[in-house]
This record gives sequence, structure tokens and C-alpha cells, in this order.
Amino acid sequence: MTAPPPPPALDRLLSPRSIAMVGASNSPTRIGGTVFGNLLRAFPGEVHPVHPKDEVVQGRTAYRSVSDLPEAVDMAVIAVPARAVVDVVAECAARGIGGATVITSGFAEAGPEGRALQDRLTAVAHETGIRVIGPNCIGYMNTHGGVMANFMITPDQPLPESGPVALVSQSGGFGSYITNKAVLAGLRLGWFVSTGNEADVNVAQVLRHLVERPEVGVLLSFVETLRDPEIFMATARRAAELDKPLVLLKAGRSDEAARAAMSHTASIVGSAQVFDAVCRQYGVFVASTMEELLDLGTIFQDGRRAAGDRVIVMTSSGGAGVLLADEAGQAGLSVPELPAEEQAALEADMPLPFYGSTSNPVDTTAQTTAMPDAYRKVLNKVAASPSGDMVAAVTWAGPGPANDAIVEMYRNTAKPVAILSTAWSEQFQRAGVPTFTDPRRAMASLSALARLSARGPVPPDPEAFAADGDRVRRVRELIAAAGEETTLLESTGKSILAMYDVPVTREELVTGVDAAVEAAARIGGPVAIKVMSYRLPHKSDAGAIRLGLRGPDAVRDGYREMLDEVARRAPDARVEGVLVQQMAPARLELTCGVQRDPVFGPMVAVGLGGVLVEVLSEAVLLRPPFDADAAVAALGRLLGGRLVTGRRGLSEEELRATAQIMTGLGALALELDEVAEVDVNPLRVADGAVLAADALIVVRHD
Amino acid sequence: MTAPPPPPALDRLLSPRSIAMVGASNSPTRIGGTVFGNLLRAFPGEVHPVHPKDEVVQGRTAYRSVSDLPEAVDMAVIAVPARAVVDVVAECAARGIGGATVITSGFAEAGPEGRALQDRLTAVAHETGIRVIGPNCIGYMNTHGGVMANFMITPDQPLPESGPVALVSQSGGFGSYITNKAVLAGLRLGWFVSTGNEADVNVAQVLRHLVERPEVGVLLSFVETLRDPEIFMATARRAAELDKPLVLLKAGRSDEAARAAMSHTASIVGSAQVFDAVCRQYGVFVASTMEELLDLGTIFQDGRRAAGDRVIVMTSSGGAGVLLADEAGQAGLSVPELPAEEQAALEADMPLPFYGSTSNPVDTTAQTTAMPDAYRKVLNKVAASPSGDMVAAVTWAGPGPANDAIVEMYRNTAKPVAILSTAWSEQFQRAGVPTFTDPRRAMASLSALARLSARGPVPPDPEAFAADGDRVRRVRELIAAAGEETTLLESTGKSILAMYDVPVTREELVTGVDAAVEAAARIGGPVAIKVMSYRLPHKSDAGAIRLGLRGPDAVRDGYREMLDEVARRAPDARVEGVLVQQMAPARLELTCGVQRDPVFGPMVAVGLGGVLVEVLSEAVLLRPPFDADAAVAALGRLLGGRLVTGRRGLSEEELRATAQIMTGLGALALELDEVAEVDVNPLRVADGAVLAADALIVVRHD
Repeated sequence: MTAPPPPPALDRLLSPRSIAMVGASNSPTRIGGTVFGNLLRAFPGEVHPVHPKDEVVQGRTAYRSVSDLPEAVDMAVIAVPARAVVDVVAECAARGIGGATVITSGFAEAGPEGRALQDRLTAVAHETGIRVIGPNCIGYMNTHGGVMANFMITPDQPLPESGPVALVSQSGGFGSYITNKAVLAGLRLGWFVSTGNEADVNVAQVLRHLVERPEVGVLLSFVETLRDPEIFMATARRAAELDKPLVLLKAGRSDEAARAAMSHTASIVGSAQVFDAVCRQYGVFVASTMEELLDLGTIFQDGRRAAGDRVIVMTSSGGAGVLLADEAGQAGLSVPELPAEEQAALEADMPLPFYGSTSNPVDTTAQTTAMPDAYRKVLNKVAASPSGDMVAAVTWAGPGPANDAIVEMYRNTAKPVAILSTAWSEQFQRAGVPTFTDPRRAMASLSALARLSARGPVPPDPEAFAADGDRVRRVRELIAAAGEETTLLESTGKSILAMYDVPVTREELVTGVDAAVEAAARIGGPVAIKVMSYRLPHKSDAGAIRLGLRGPDAVRDGYREMLDEVARRAPDARVEGVLVQQMAPARLELTCGVQRDPVFGPMVAVGLGGVLVEVLSEAVLLRPPFDADAAVAALGRLLGGRLVTGRRGLSEEELRATAQIMTGLGALALELDEVAEVDVNPLRVADGAVLAADALIVVRHD
Repeated sequence: MTAPPPPPALDRLLSPRSIAMVGASNSPTRIGGTVFGNLLRAFPGEVHPVHPKDEVVQGRTAYRSVSDLPEAVDMAVIAVPARAVVDVVAECAARGIGGATVITSGFAEAGPEGRALQDRLTAVAHETGIRVIGPNCIGYMNTHGGVMANFMITPDQPLPESGPVALVSQSGGFGSYITNKAVLAGLRLGWFVSTGNEADVNVAQVLRHLVERPEVGVLLSFVETLRDPEIFMATARRAAELDKPLVLLKAGRSDEAARAAMSHTASIVGSAQVFDAVCRQYGVFVASTMEELLDLGTIFQDGRRAAGDRVIVMTSSGGAGVLLADEAGQAGLSVPELPAEEQAALEADMPLPFYGSTSNPVDTTAQTTAMPDAYRKVLNKVAASPSGDMVAAVTWAGPGPANDAIVEMYRNTAKPVAILSTAWSEQFQRAGVPTFTDPRRAMASLSALARLSARGPVPPDPEAFAADGDRVRRVRELIAAAGEETTLLESTGKSILAMYDVPVTREELVTGVDAAVEAAARIGGPVAIKVMSYRLPHKSDAGAIRLGLRGPDAVRDGYREMLDEVARRAPDARVEGVLVQQMAPARLELTCGVQRDPVFGPMVAVGLGGVLVEVLSEAVLLRPPFDADAAVAALGRLLGGRLVTGRRGLSEEELRATAQIMTGLGALALELDEVAEVDVNPLRVADGAVLAADALIVVRHD
């Protein structure tokens, strides 16, 4: 099977040089009138209305049909009743039009009939190559190209100020809402694209298109269903390469929301945990609220980067300074005390008597704020301080010299700056100074910027993963030996794990009591023995395991007792052999495995194992391929970091060994699509070593 | 020692019928001019300026000194240089003035000299009985009494709209800042009090005063240092009795902030974990950000209560509906699907064709919002639905019929309502409709309201705790037997625990190997033996313990080996005896103890025990006295609830047994001030029983 050719690019659709609109209206209160009015606002090229009766629409000559258009425009906006849409799009494709923006509702969101209509629309797009945005969207805005193909605002409202921020939203209504808020927050939106029902073009494809555009510096997105996860991951890698931040707000995380999302977009919602893990791994910021999405846009839009995590806090209120310092600490930033000589220099500029602090937070008191010259000097010294990488300043002054001084400070420094302000933010927003209304939001934003500035190497390219063909062939032989069985024997599972450099307990598969005794002698020390049978997945329930047997007699007695018990309790279970196995010591038990997510595919999970695995169900996840450093970082997040930093936690050696096991399982998952699930539990950790003591591998035969 | 008489009440200070101001100025740009101008704005009684030279200040006859005042006013505002403040306050007290609001800075925040000044101010207040707010504060506002004794705004700015919300802030600057934001957020502030350095009156005392005032319905507070924790707890109980919500924002949680707070208020910062635990126990809401403090004020200020946790979400954007449903789920609220007949009734009001949803979220689509009659009908049906306890509605419409319909719906229902809105919130705020700018903030606020509405009984009154005098006497005899030792023997500790109904392992303290063998026989089953010595707090390090000894020979051998090893490894340790102890089985190990917090005093802690205690340092805390239900609730929060709900977690029986141990330790902590620390580790949990297997009690001798 060869892959289908990639669909045509989105340039004609999203950066058209000429536009038509089918369903353009002379009535300004109708959607067809609003959108057409918007199209006329800023577009430098031709905009042709198509109307069945009117000769002229909003001053432009109208054409009877798409076929009558004087040119094959790049993009057509379509706002005709749902039942007519598919034919119009087909007509557009036949006329040589490159893209269609379908505003009309009444498709998959409206029940089975609409679903069928949408499927036909998808088919037309795929067959003809015309790229389609929508249906059931509010269109898009490309201020750089002057395209206002939307009804997110009416033609009498001012256009938002353009800039480096692109916002891509599946939901049109929400996109409009958030665009409104974005403008209030001082965000400079150059692009807004709503993808609606995504009959053809989806959020991931639009992000892939926009990440390459030079005028786009920050990508924000609101998604309910992430289609094309491979394109999403590739886009995230590309954003990392180009050092452009990508921020996602994901809806549909709770059960309540999953039902709401399914009823409104008729689409499947993936696992929020997997989504978060993949985003983290690929350097994508996951906003947890709408305001956080905007806050990150605000801190990222001026393109500044931080050299480190040290913030100097400027305040004229001690209390606000404490809150900012608090939030800095909680956000993982440092607020270092300034060195004595810097403090002395700051104090020299303060009015006397000075009751504030020069330590950091630098508390000028309200008195200094009221003295513009002194305040300006202090501000500029703080911004120039070699002890800080970022500046956070709180002001509740109204327009005047103090705020002018803050704007001046911002312009004179290349360091990131965050202002905490309530009532009078407009001046700062106009000047492009990132401005926040809550101490936590200010510091969380600076913290995100510090993480962006310090982000590590671009994650490995999934496309570049090379399977080890010889190994794959050998594993498939082992799987084939299981016949129709889907759960492999523990002994087979561990043989497979060993091929992926997963250290397993020393063990031998034997038949007969004498062979067991000899194997135990070769293995040395106390041993466990386990009955291998496809019918006994839960060995301890059937008495199919004996632990801690030391010496030939104990092995012999245990072997016989065990087989007797199994014969009694599970008479139908055919015994394939007995596994004689080293007893591995354990200070800690971990569990590690492979699961397959319906959206993102293979995921390697690692968590605490043993008895507590059910009490403490926490785990961290990684999408293969990943390198050992990524695995080490993931382990560092288990149990809030305590698995690595705790006194009885993993040593450096054990950490590296666990990371190697994780990369091995990642390779296994990528090489063998037929492996549905791997569960290594427990991984026994002691004295620098990590050993797989049990392993369950489930395969699909299809 | 008898307790000192309580200081005079705050009525004259905070609700004066006449006012004087020392340091009143004719210059509107000076603080003394701003405050005096504010005092003249709304106060119905006399306001007398005191000025050394000017005959008239801002139109009022001035007096040379406090002694020259024509009457003993209730309250004097003082804004004179720091060095003059103490004498002026003393003069006020001599003149019969009831309270002083000291605006002046330059006290404890300004170094040792200022600290000394402040101590003198405190002494004057305590000696004369005059109540003092400040110094280093921006004063207070009592709109109900017309008192604007502050410079948080200037006389030309409009007064905030009055209402049931009281805000008490240690930090004046922050208070001013947050007051500004509160007004923007539509919060109706009837009271704002800044307490500054708290030379006399502190936040807890002001809250205790305000909670009793009938016009106050909601108490908000920003604190850095909580002085008078007993008054705070009593106020919290009183707020629960009166069903008035109390919300605190606490600064100084991180190390960074602790340093900042100490440098700016020169005061000790307590443990954030203990603070949170006490607040939870006493029904106090802890806001984690400034905006959350305001959000809770917003949802609480109309005094509505929710009958349950079911929210109906109204939206005209599917995406916004999903986000709101998501946040509802994450905040612990439910978004139940509406029954078929309710859905049919809603659908009957929607315009055709209808592409939205009536399921909940009720997605009207933008089309319905544009049809005011239909929208109004749907809104009112949703508000009247028996399937919902609360309504959340999103709108991004500008002023017009749709928003009018929302206000009308709010007025027609007694249910709590939260509106999500961006640009056009003023209309809602004017009408008193709680309005939010982020889905999470809207739902977190409704969730807090649901918790407030469902809060349980008022916690027990610490004053009402009655010690068991006989038990105290018996415990003190045991402690006395330890002489000068501060760490009691395990055997003594467990005898004490048993008096507080803590089940301990069966055990006997013996001397001599034969006695040990006999004791082991009486105890039955395998036993542990442990050397009791004041010099061996860490028994296993010195070989002073043997586990799992079964039968006389094992006990005999173990006893001898153990004592030999101790003699060899710790030759100086005097052996007080050997404890022969039942080996208690364990499916789970817990740890439980008593600590003393410098602010809140005794705290009972419970957490996971055994090997993982260092990896998983999480614990929950309770301030005694508390009842068994409170202990059960606290255990339910351990490990994110999994300790109770997990398959291997605590059974109902084990849960009750653990709760009983906690209440026992609570009584011990309250009865015995000399017990500095109790550490019961492990508590062994198995088969419905919970047994203390080891116990460490540390006492103070003073």
C-alpha cells in the first residue's frame, strides 16, 4: 500500500489574492451581509459576490453563479443553506477555485442527515483537491493579507490590532469570544482561524501552515478533538526548531465535558492524561484556562527570552511584593536578594526617610512612586541589574509620570517584563508591555517564558525511527509460537524484553523436577518457581507460584506441591513448563508498560509498583521515540519529584537503568504494531540495579 | 495567673460618631490633605482638624492641639511625623478619645529605631485602653457610617458602591490595589480596613468585630502574619454559626515570600500547610490568588445558597459550553443531562432549524441569542428547571435584549447564577449579577458556593474542651518517672497512648531472659523484642531489636544475641528493660502524631507510614479539638482520596479505628502542654484493626 499524495497546501485558501462569496447579502444584519461587509474592509484584491437575483451586492457587481465568475479566484466564502453547500463547493472546484470557507451550519452537529451531508462535503474536497474550512465555523481572519472572511465582529466594529499572535480554534463562537478578550488583554492577533466541523482542514493542519509563516511568532489554539496527531507532533517539533511557542487549551477533559463535546461536534475525545504527556514531551504549553491561554500569548508576543529564572520584583506596596514573591516561588522562579552594592545604589536614589526595601522585592513605597525622577532611576537600575533575568513591577497608579517611567524602562531593556496592574492597563498594552491583573498570572507567565527560554533539544523525529529488522523477525517468531494465544507466557515475554535491553531476572524454563533443581543451582541463591500456562494469567490465585525456595529439597518439595495444587485448582490448564527464577531484592518496586492511545498511539508508562500500585495510581507517560534524557526527566516528575529526590528514592544508577528500560519498551512499541500492551510489574529496584521480575505481553493477531 | 481583662471593643474606633484629625492639611496632594478631604465627603457627624498653625483646614475650624478639641471625639486620625505619634496618641487617650487611626510610616518596618517607637505605641494603647489601628496603614473605610478615614482614593474619585462585603487587609497598599480591582469586578464593599503594622488592633480582631455587624454578609481578608490565632478560630466558628462566608488570601507561603514578608513587616510567618488545614477545618475559604479572593466575594455577595451541586450551563457557543462543563466537572459540580420532557419543552422555544443542543449544556446557538423572545423563554425555563441547583450562562453579546433577558432571569430566580462575559460586564455588575471572565473562575466560584451551602456542623469550640483531670494526673506520674529525660521509653509512650484509647500492640516490659520467654508465651504468636533505653532512640541502628521470634528457643537466643550486640555497639546505654511485643500484621502502614505549630499550637497529623513515609511525605492535619467525623473526612483526603477509596485502602472499620486514634491524640495534645511531640509510626493496619506498633513521645520539662 502506498501512502496517498499529500493534499494541496493551504496557501490559496488562507492567503488568497482574489475572493468570491456565495451567499453574499445586501442585508447588514444577515450573516451573508456581515461577512461580505467584512471582506470589503481591508482586502487589497478583488472580492466578487455571487447572488442568484441581486445585480449588485454592497456596491460590487454580483454574478449569478460560481461558473459565471470572471476568474478562478483563490478562495470562496460560502454562506448558503446547508443542502446547497456540497454542490456549490463542487462547482467551485470545477471553476478552479483553490479553497472554500464554509460558514453554513447544519452538518455533523445537526444529526444523521447533516452527518451524511458533511461526509459528501469531505468526499468532494478529497476528490477534487479543493481545500475546505468548516462547515459550521465563523470563518477566519488574516490581517497580514487583509482577509476578514468571518463574522466574529460586525463591519462597524474596529479591526483588532495586528501582530505576531495566531489563534486557531475549532469552535467559532468560542474563538470569537476569546478574540474579544484577546483584544481587551492587549494581544495583537495577526491570524484567527476557526475550523468548525473540520470536514477537510483541521486545527493541526492550520497550525502546521502557520508555524512556517514569518509574521507568526506565537501560536495559540483551542481544540476539542485533536485530529491528525502526527501532524500535530510534527508541528510541535517544527515550532521548537523555529523557537516559536505553541500553546493549547484543550476542552473535553472531564466526563461532563466529554459528553458535551460529543453532542456538539459529534467527535471522539481522547485521554487528557495522554494529551498532556505528549504536549509536555514536545514542548507544547497546555493552558489550563482560557485566561492562561491569553496570558501566555501576552508574555510571548514581544519575542523576548530570559537568560535564567531570576526575577526582580518592583513594588510600591509591601503586601503586593510579598504576593508576587510568593507566586514567583510557587512558579519555580527565584527572587534573589540583591547584593549589598546594588542595594546601596538603589537606596541612594530613594527619597529620605526611606521606609521601603532594596532587598528584592524592591519596595519603593508609594512615596517614591510619587517622585517620578527617583522612581525612573530606580526602575532603570533594577532593569539593568546583573542579578535579575526578568522584571516584574506592580503599579496601581493612574496615567502619569510613574507609568510613563515603566514604559520607558520596558523599552530600554531587552529582558522580559511583566506588569501587574488593575485599572489602568491601556497605556501599557498600547506600548506592548505584557500586563497582568493577578500576581499568580503574572508569575506563571514569566515562569512559562523561562521554561520556553531554557527548553532543551528538539525531541527526536518519529519519522526518523529505524526499526531493527532482524530483532523484529526474531520477536515475531516467538509471538508465532504462541499460536492463537493473545497473552504471551511470562517466559516468552521476558525473552522479548531482554532483546530490548530490559534487564530481567536470571531464569530458566524447565520441565520436570530434576531440571528445576539443576536450574536453581545454576541460578544460585533462593529462587521462585512459577507454572507457565496460557490458562493461568493470575498465577497466585491458582497456587501456581512458590517464592524463596532455598536448596534442592525446598525446590523439589515446592515444585511438587505447586503442580499438585495447580492440577487440583485449575485442572484444565495445560502446563507449558515451569519457570525457575532468581529472587530479586527490592527496596522499591516500579511498574512500566506500553499502552496504545486511540489518538496518539503507543505510550510508555512508568509508575510506582507493588502493593501500592492500586493506592497510588499515578504514572508518567512518554510517546516513543524518546531518548534516555527524556525518560530521566519523566521519572523526575513521579510522586512530585520524590521518587528521585527522596532519601529512599532512585539512585543515579537506578534512574539511568529505569530510563533504559523505558527507551527499550518504546522501541518495542514502535517496532511491533501487533503488541497491544506490555505490563512489567514489578520492576524490582535495589542496590543500583533494576530487574523486571514479571512481564505480561498482549498481542493482536490480525 | 488570671487572664488580663479583654481590651475595649472596637466600636468607637471603627464606627465613630465624631472624628478629629491630627496632621490634617490644606494641601490636597499631601496625605494629610487627601485623608482629611476624604473624611469630609460622607461623614454625618463633626470632623475637627488639628493643626499647629492654620486657623482653618479645608473649611473647618482647626484646633491647636488634641487637648484643645471641643469634645472627646470617638476616633482620631493621625498623620504626623513618626517621632511625634506616640505623644499624640497618649494625648488622645488623655482627652478621652476612644480610638486612633495612625497613618504614619516609620515604625517596625523601618528598622530598630522604628521598632522601639512602635513598642512604645503598643504600650500606650495597652496602658490607656485607646484602640489603635496602624501605624503604617492607609486607614479604613466604613461606608455604612460614612467614614472615609483613608487615602486609598483621592477626594475627587467616586466613592465605591456600598454593600455587604468587608475587606480587611494588613497591607494598605495592596488593600488599595485590591479595592480598586474589587470595584472593577462589581464587588460592593461596605467596609475596607487596613491594619498596617498592627501595633494594637490586628486582622483577627477586626474580623471578629465585623462578623457580628448585621450589614456585613461576606468577609474577605488579606493577611501576611496571622496574629491572635485563637480569635481567628473563634471568628471562623462565629462566621459559620451566622452563615457568613470568610475568605482569606494568605501571603508568605513560599520561602521567597517569607523573606520578603519578614523584611517588610518584621514578623514571623507560620506554616502554610498548618494554616490551610486550620482554615479547612473551620470552614474558612483560602483563596489561592488575588482574583480568587474577588471571585469568591462576587459569588457570595448576593447571599444566595445552592440546594445541591447540579449546574445547568447556558451557552450560544458549543466550545464555551464544553469548557464550562469541563470546569464544572473539575470543580466537583455535576452538569446533569436534562430529562427528555424538559429538553422537548426547551426545543419548542428554539428557532427552526435548530442546530444546538437542549441536553445540558443548553446550546442555543447564536441564532437564538439574536431572537430575544425565544432566548428569554429558554433562559427562564432553564432557571426554573427542577434538574438544576445553579445556572451558569455565557454571553458575549453587547448591551441589548439578550443581556437584558439574562438580568431578568437572574432577578426571577433565587438560585445562584454565574455569568461568563468578556467585554460587556457593566450591565450585569450594576444589576448585581455575579460575572466572571474565565470559565474556570466561574465554576470554581459556584463550587465554593455549593460547599458553603452544604457545610456541616460548626466545629467544636476549643474553649469547651474539658480535660480529664484524673487521666492527666496519671500521665504526669509516668512522665515524672522519666526524670530529666525528654524522650520517653516506647513502653511508657504506649502506656500513655492506651489511656487515650489508642490500641497498641500486646506487650510486656520485662527484665531477664526467662521473664521474656514467659511474656512471649502469654502474648502468643511470633513476637518482637526491643531494648528499652533512653540512650537508644534509633533501636535498629544499635541492634536493639529482634523481629518475628517464634517459640521459647528463638526468644531466648534472640534476647541474648540482642543484649550482647547492644553491649558491644552502645556500651554506655543503660538498659531499662526489654519490651516483648506482639508482631502486628499489616496490609498498610500509617503514621500519626502530634506537632506544635508556633502559630496554631497543637496539630494532629496522619499520613502514610512505613518505608514509603519518606518518599510520600504527604500528611493531613487537624487542630484539636475535633470529632471523629472530622478525622474521617481528613483521612478521606489522604493520597487524593485513594487511601479510603482504593481497593487496598482502609475499610470502614479501619477508618473509624484510625479516626479514634486521631481524636485520642488530639485530647492528649490538649490536656498535656508539656508533650511537645508524639510520633506513632507505624500504625499497622490489617483485617479491620489498627495497632500502634511503635511510639515516640517527647516532653518538655519547664
